[in-house]
Amino acid sequence: MDCINPFLVSVTNVFRTMAACELTRGEPFLAAEGQPTHDISGVIGLSGKAIGTVVVSLERQVALHVAHAMLGEMPPDLNGDVVDAIGELTNMIAGSAKSQLEQFAMSLSMPSVIMGRNHTIAFPGEVTPIAIPFDCQWGPICVQVGLCQKTA
Amino acid sequence: MDCINPFLVSVTNVFRTMAACELTRGEPFLAAEGQPTHDISGVIGLSGKAIGTVVVSLERQVALHVAHAMLGEMPPDLNGDVVDAIGELTNMIAGSAKSQLEQFAMSLSMPSVIMGRNHTIAFPGEVTPIAIPFDCQWGPICVQVGLCQKTA
Repeated sequence: MDCINPFLVSVTNVFRTMAACELTRGEPFLAAEGQPTHDISGVIGLSGKAIGTVVVSLERQVALHVAHAMLGEMPPDLNGDVVDAIGELTNMIAGSAKSQLEQFAMSLSMPSVIMGRNHTIAFPGEVTPIAIPFDCQWGPICVQVGLCQKTA
Repeated sequence: MDCINPFLVSVTNVFRTMAACELTRGEPFLAAEGQPTHDISGVIGLSGKAIGTVVVSLERQVALHVAHAMLGEMPPDLNGDVVDAIGELTNMIAGSAKSQLEQFAMSLSMPSVIMGRNHTIAFPGEVTPIAIPFDCQWGPICVQVGLCQKTA
């Protein structure tokens, strides 16, 4: 759970800085396998002395407003600009958290952005990700973090 | 394109070794943004002197048969066992390709597994992933590889 705190902080900070958006945090919970997500999810991998994945999942309206704040104009739908904005947001959240987890010497992979109603994201093996629900004036956001130390 | 060859080889080898499945390869193409994928996709990040993402996307029937071959029994649906099998398969494909790309000194993140009909996976920014379609006796598979060298 110690590893989750940096993510709590970075999510709140990145939304405030990038989208002038104040988040209210809900209770973190262990995400059941194949937890349903919102309409669009940014996914990024971390690797080093620990490996992990961070998923930032947003309702359509939240994604559009975040992209609006980051790009200066409201996108008409979940287009390439929104993909870029959500990829960048995910990258910043993971990057900021990782710098607070120096003991794992992790580096970031490239973000990818998943779309599609009712998509689910599961983590294989014994890793149970922690899901952290947030709310903002535009709707809900859920951040999932799965992290495990390398055994080798 | 030099970077794609190791992935072509590793996909074919991993399916042969793990699932006794011979693949026929189609023509690689530049994946348009938000390329639709098959029913279930394994996603894994790579990071080091280059960063990247590998997506292994399978039709439901292919995923079930691959899991059958890896686990010894046919799963009734796309359950946790299939998630584990596809995560492991994605991990092996990326791991085997990365060992042939030593110049980038990359390490792997944790795989995640996306499900949901009509989900799409997009890569933000200027990265255009290369998609490689494959066919096997159970149906189609598509592997997408996005890789770029770090500028720093």
